[in-house]
Amino acid sequence: MLAITLSADWEPREGARLTSNELAGHFAGDARQVWRNPHFQLGQRPLPRIDAPGDVIVKVHRAGIARSNCKMGDSDAEGYVLLPYRMRLPLIPGHEIAGEIVEKGTAVRHLQVGDPVAIQALQPCGSCRACLQGKPNQCLETGFSGFTSDGGMAQYFVTSARFVHSLLPVAERFGFDRAMDVGAVCEPAAMAYVGLFRQAGGFLPGATIAIFGCGPIGLSCVSLARCAGAAKIVAFDRTQNRLRHALALGADMAVNVRDAADQENGVSEALLEFSGGMGIDLVIEATGDAWNLFPQFEKALAIGAKVVSLGVERKPMPISLFPYQETGAWLTGTMGHIGGFEPLIALHASERMDLSTIIDARFDLANGLQALQVASRFDEAKVVLLPHAEPASIGDAQAI
Amino acid sequence: MLAITLSADWEPREGARLTSNELAGHFAGDARQVWRNPHFQLGQRPLPRIDAPGDVIVKVHRAGIARSNCKMGDSDAEGYVLLPYRMRLPLIPGHEIAGEIVEKGTAVRHLQVGDPVAIQALQPCGSCRACLQGKPNQCLETGFSGFTSDGGMAQYFVTSARFVHSLLPVAERFGFDRAMDVGAVCEPAAMAYVGLFRQAGGFLPGATIAIFGCGPIGLSCVSLARCAGAAKIVAFDRTQNRLRHALALGADMAVNVRDAADQENGVSEALLEFSGGMGIDLVIEATGDAWNLFPQFEKALAIGAKVVSLGVERKPMPISLFPYQETGAWLTGTMGHIGGFEPLIALHASERMDLSTIIDARFDLANGLQALQVASRFDEAKVVLLPHAEPASIGDAQAI
Amino acid sequence: MLAITLSADWEPREGARLTSNELAGHFAGDARQVWRNPHFQLGQRPLPRIDAPGDVIVKVHRAGIARSNCKMGDSDAEGYVLLPYRMRLPLIPGHEIAGEIVEKGTAVRHLQVGDPVAIQALQPCGSCRACLQGKPNQCLETGFSGFTSDGGMAQYFVTSARFVHSLLPVAERFGFDRAMDVGAVCEPAAMAYVGLFRQAGGFLPGATIAIFGCGPIGLSCVSLARCAGAAKIVAFDRTQNRLRHALALGADMAVNVRDAADQENGVSEALLEFSGGMGIDLVIEATGDAWNLFPQFEKALAIGAKVVSLGVERKPMPISLFPYQETGAWLTGTMGHIGGFEPLIALHASERMDLSTIIDARFDLANGLQALQVASRFDEAKVVLLPHAEPASIGDAQAI
Amino acid sequence: MLAITLSADWEPREGARLTSNELAGHFAGDARQVWRNPHFQLGQRPLPRIDAPGDVIVKVHRAGIARSNCKMGDSDAEGYVLLPYRMRLPLIPGHEIAGEIVEKGTAVRHLQVGDPVAIQALQPCGSCRACLQGKPNQCLETGFSGFTSDGGMAQYFVTSARFVHSLLPVAERFGFDRAMDVGAVCEPAAMAYVGLFRQAGGFLPGATIAIFGCGPIGLSCVSLARCAGAAKIVAFDRTQNRLRHALALGADMAVNVRDAADQENGVSEALLEFSGGMGIDLVIEATGDAWNLFPQFEKALAIGAKVVSLGVERKPMPISLFPYQETGAWLTGTMGHIGGFEPLIALHASERMDLSTIIDARFDLANGLQALQVASRFDEAKVVLLPHAEPASIGDAQAI
Repeated sequence: MLAITLSADWEPREGARLTSNELAGHFAGDARQVWRNPHFQLGQRPLPRIDAPGDVIVKVHRAGIARSNCKMGDSDAEGYVLLPYRMRLPLIPGHEIAGEIVEKGTAVRHLQVGDPVAIQALQPCGSCRACLQGKPNQCLETGFSGFTSDGGMAQYFVTSARFVHSLLPVAERFGFDRAMDVGAVCEPAAMAYVGLFRQAGGFLPGATIAIFGCGPIGLSCVSLARCAGAAKIVAFDRTQNRLRHALALGADMAVNVRDAADQENGVSEALLEFSGGMGIDLVIEATGDAWNLFPQFEKALAIGAKVVSLGVERKPMPISLFPYQETGAWLTGTMGHIGGFEPLIALHASERMDLSTIIDARFDLANGLQALQVASRFDEAKVVLLPHAEPASIGDAQAI
Repeated sequence: MLAITLSADWEPREGARLTSNELAGHFAGDARQVWRNPHFQLGQRPLPRIDAPGDVIVKVHRAGIARSNCKMGDSDAEGYVLLPYRMRLPLIPGHEIAGEIVEKGTAVRHLQVGDPVAIQALQPCGSCRACLQGKPNQCLETGFSGFTSDGGMAQYFVTSARFVHSLLPVAERFGFDRAMDVGAVCEPAAMAYVGLFRQAGGFLPGATIAIFGCGPIGLSCVSLARCAGAAKIVAFDRTQNRLRHALALGADMAVNVRDAADQENGVSEALLEFSGGMGIDLVIEATGDAWNLFPQFEKALAIGAKVVSLGVERKPMPISLFPYQETGAWLTGTMGHIGGFEPLIALHASERMDLSTIIDARFDLANGLQALQVASRFDEAKVVLLPHAEPASIGDAQAI
Repeated sequence: MLAITLSADWEPREGARLTSNELAGHFAGDARQVWRNPHFQLGQRPLPRIDAPGDVIVKVHRAGIARSNCKMGDSDAEGYVLLPYRMRLPLIPGHEIAGEIVEKGTAVRHLQVGDPVAIQALQPCGSCRACLQGKPNQCLETGFSGFTSDGGMAQYFVTSARFVHSLLPVAERFGFDRAMDVGAVCEPAAMAYVGLFRQAGGFLPGATIAIFGCGPIGLSCVSLARCAGAAKIVAFDRTQNRLRHALALGADMAVNVRDAADQENGVSEALLEFSGGMGIDLVIEATGDAWNLFPQFEKALAIGAKVVSLGVERKPMPISLFPYQETGAWLTGTMGHIGGFEPLIALHASERMDLSTIIDARFDLANGLQALQVASRFDEAKVVLLPHAEPASIGDAQAI
Repeated sequence: MLAITLSADWEPREGARLTSNELAGHFAGDARQVWRNPHFQLGQRPLPRIDAPGDVIVKVHRAGIARSNCKMGDSDAEGYVLLPYRMRLPLIPGHEIAGEIVEKGTAVRHLQVGDPVAIQALQPCGSCRACLQGKPNQCLETGFSGFTSDGGMAQYFVTSARFVHSLLPVAERFGFDRAMDVGAVCEPAAMAYVGLFRQAGGFLPGATIAIFGCGPIGLSCVSLARCAGAAKIVAFDRTQNRLRHALALGADMAVNVRDAADQENGVSEALLEFSGGMGIDLVIEATGDAWNLFPQFEKALAIGAKVVSLGVERKPMPISLFPYQETGAWLTGTMGHIGGFEPLIALHASERMDLSTIIDARFDLANGLQALQVASRFDEAKVVLLPHAEPASIGDAQAI
């Protein structure tokens, strides 16, 4: 089958401490320590096979390109991978996957051949202390399709039926094709769902919400905030296209953060004005580049506010705790998408929301490497591969 | 000014135990113990006056007729009042009030003459143990406009500015008249809001919700459930008009409970089918007549379900706890509207919902006694008095 | 090895609806439908073997006798089992198990041969909708050692290491024998822990708590309530020995419910007096026979109270919802012990509590059938089997 | 009566923006803007009088000296006050007050002359948006005895009965004198209670807890953590006396933070070792000087951990959010003591805890200025004034 493969050389850095597990499996807990000269290739790969009675094979109809996919091939001056993730190479990337079941193991009951499905890429271990506490998104030894095993940028994909969510309710109401589009955006949307509702505990209907960063996760937050009863939503980003999406998905105001940042306290004043002086009930940080934003958030917290960090960034933020004491506000971070697929599918099936509209560009798999380049400009909200589309059926026009 | 007054004779039943407070003030903790021969009258009453620097006088433009208003004049075989409420008579009833401020005390800063407002009828004491725990809706010594002091079925009304919520954001967007309609339904809607979100803690977006009873509170639950991200909503009632309202406000299915009740387990089977066998995440009981419903609910509880009792009924229900153990479900009751007005006004101002549509009939105050009779048929979702309307301006036509 | 076995005849009742699964496996979803003439036997059984690389074999040093064990052998007039549980027969009963690991599969890393351990009898499936929602205690297809597979009333026992909790911290501080005693009572104590803290969400330190029923679960509630900061604890039971245990574990008052029940409203008045008129913050129902108690609880609820049902009873209770509305109280039920073992072991290891004292009688396995009879009197708080004890080492004296 | 008075000159800084309210009342929202040359004096002041029917006069038997009292008299190079608090001068400081009621207004029912009481210094407005949301500790316009009106470093004190908590249950069990000692430490203990249980939502029994800073608030956290079921408690401070107190109140380990800070990652490694590698479930920051601590906390967070900031510090902390994402941890701040007095009194009355032991030194009021100096060394856990003690009755010996 046709597939995109990421390869690199196994050259542990001097002084890298590797476990016997890592050494045996050419698997890195932190890719930066061992993988050198990463590069994508397009080519033929063997068809996946059913290994266990609970497995299913999925014919991939959509494979979304995530920000991390764009970064996977980047390397530092010495040629080492930049992403600090767990990674086993070579492998087929792609963790935003929708398709139809074409084969199933003998133990799979709830799914049928032909079912349209979305894939949960995280595969929690079930027995670490996070899993035992009912926090599978914090699993300490999770598998992750597209990072620790082959993902979806290919024509077929195999996984356990436990990690497969049926899109049948969407397909029955809106057709197979729309179901595939919805399935393609379920992964980032589920990250948003988990962050807003499972980790942060949601908000009261009538709340005022600010969302920083309108990538697929931030846009999902806009749509979910609207869907769950926020009375006022303001979205910030640096890209006009993404701000347009935010407005279309239900934001009441969209601000180019460059404009607000021109003035000292520009962001905090915008937040206070937007909230009628009451402060923001829920702040969502989805930029990963919030060094300058945290000092702004803290001047515009409502009583009992929540601040949720979704953007991945390891360096410390300058956070003054006094405003959190004054307002009784909370700050938390979130990770993972487990527990987001089912409610998102239900919400789409009942037409409460439609995140398929964030797909700005579609590419057939033969043009997959070009698609990765387009996605790396980060102008589009979401770029998606269609591994079984005829090249002609998509065309240049749809690629933007 | 023109007003409706409820009067009765102070004739304590033999053996009634009354406090010195009650005796001194002709005030009854339980109206059934002392008030005899209740009757409504329409007539002139003196204008209310500002007593304290924090008071405001409201020109009443809408006074909704609640179920309890219809029952206030009913009596038993011996002529005693049937409602077991705290009541000081004679008094002007009406606790669903919207109007504009026409005069304010010297200490009132946040409100201006001319402001459109909705009235919070409950006046918690602020110092009982419920109030001190942040549960003012459970206040043990609450005042209640329309029951313990004059209410809104009159041309003017006085209260403390603390119990007044500005409708300005609604009026600015939709005009004064729509603001008044919204204000008229805020009280029952706030009961629903408090029950669903403050007492019961809400639900996760994507949930499946069942609502029993489509009076104004039940219909508000439908609209709020839709607004807050329920994926599937089923509403039950005995009246076709109310079921039509439920569908218009966002229910996905409306069931005449008489039909379902024809079969044994009709209701529980309808719930299970509606939820695709998963069970109901949130059951709202707003009928007050649920003797037969509780044994049905318990067969259709989702894992971690919540059951919220809004309907007032003192006799015990037959509730089997085993299904609550199996599913880890919770059951609670709710009372009061404090904390519901502000978010409801925000949600209406931002066009997230519109409960003004449940007003089925409008009467001028001169026809107020007739309005009470119409409302007592319980066919209309909400009947409202317009104390400053010209009789001609409403007309028979609008009274359904 | 020596073991107690429960056997019965597979004689499905007329009209019993059985799944193909049940028919194939001589397994009953509801034991009452198929199992006839149940009877215990003492005799030799083959040693258990490691089947999977994650399994461990435990040398059983303690096997507690639960209320349900006493009832397993009871039958109705036609000879059918009375317990409505899932049951596969013949099998070794016993789900309160402590011992030491004597053999382990190749994949077991965190446990060593010789480790003292307590066994979690519930084996949730991990993939039903309860498990996926992080509610494994509500698992719809859970395995249960002692009911669906062999339990601990034997000299050896096999299970997956996932269901094994190390008692090493207790043994290191208090010795192996005490660790075994603690392990023996972990199962009922974990039921209490899950009910109080995971399902009911605990209580604020300084709370007033009432506990009905002082069997092992109720006594665990007493001890946990004391341990977690209840300011006042009142316990009710019918048995003086159990009330003595309640006082020893930290109850401030112990009431024989027969005395209180003599007067109408005796229980509710006792509760109100005990709480200084404030009402009870947390009511724990652990009798399973609460028909008369619910009407009493509801007269003594504090603002925001919680009522938790732990006692198993399928018939409906007469529950008036009006007091729940007035106080904003919550009612819930609880089931299962998953999530209770680790914190209980930590609390015992740090000497915060000691539930091993509830063991009133110890029997060697050769006297196991007699032990079942003693336990069936329900005078003792907990009766325990010591499958590897020399008969002489226990003696009559210790059997009370 | 004898009293300590803090005076200063009203000399608004150039450019200070003052409201008409501040100008009229010689009241400063931020003391640093207007008050110059602050100084304490000991001398005679007129007796307080009952102004409102709800007032009570308290004969002050204990007035604790808080850290902020020690700082009130400090000034910068230009002589301006350093504390950024709301302050009306001249005034009697002291907000940790216990005494007995000697006079009461006509409307006070629940308290009697002679009752031993503890004083809640915060007087929330009841009508700001924080109060209306049930968050009185976040009140935007709160009064504060000892800062915005006369406090307790005097022989008598007047306040509203609403802010008075009866110590009768403590006095009945342990005598009047012990009740006064308990009352003296209620204020800082209530800060701890509110932070741990009302703001942070507490912890599960069996948790592992780390407390940084063993002043009166930190020590109260130790005692409350022990009382509420923490299995393991480690306390950090720089003072041996305070660490001794921590051990006496229930800490399992006490660490001089200077020792731990000697090594890089010394604190995080101590935390990980103490928790057996599981991480800390609840971190309490009560030093106000945590610049170096936050980077340590984040390396030792348990799954679902909470970090609570109690120490007052306005400058930003370097906080990396990635560990919060990985663990699903939460961070919050807390302020205020409302809602802490009642449960603390209940816990002391039932002998669940005893914080009176943290009083290290007692001074009669005639030696009050010396007491302030002793307290300013911050070696003692708590220094208390006894305004009605005979100087001889205390003596040098007790002042350490």
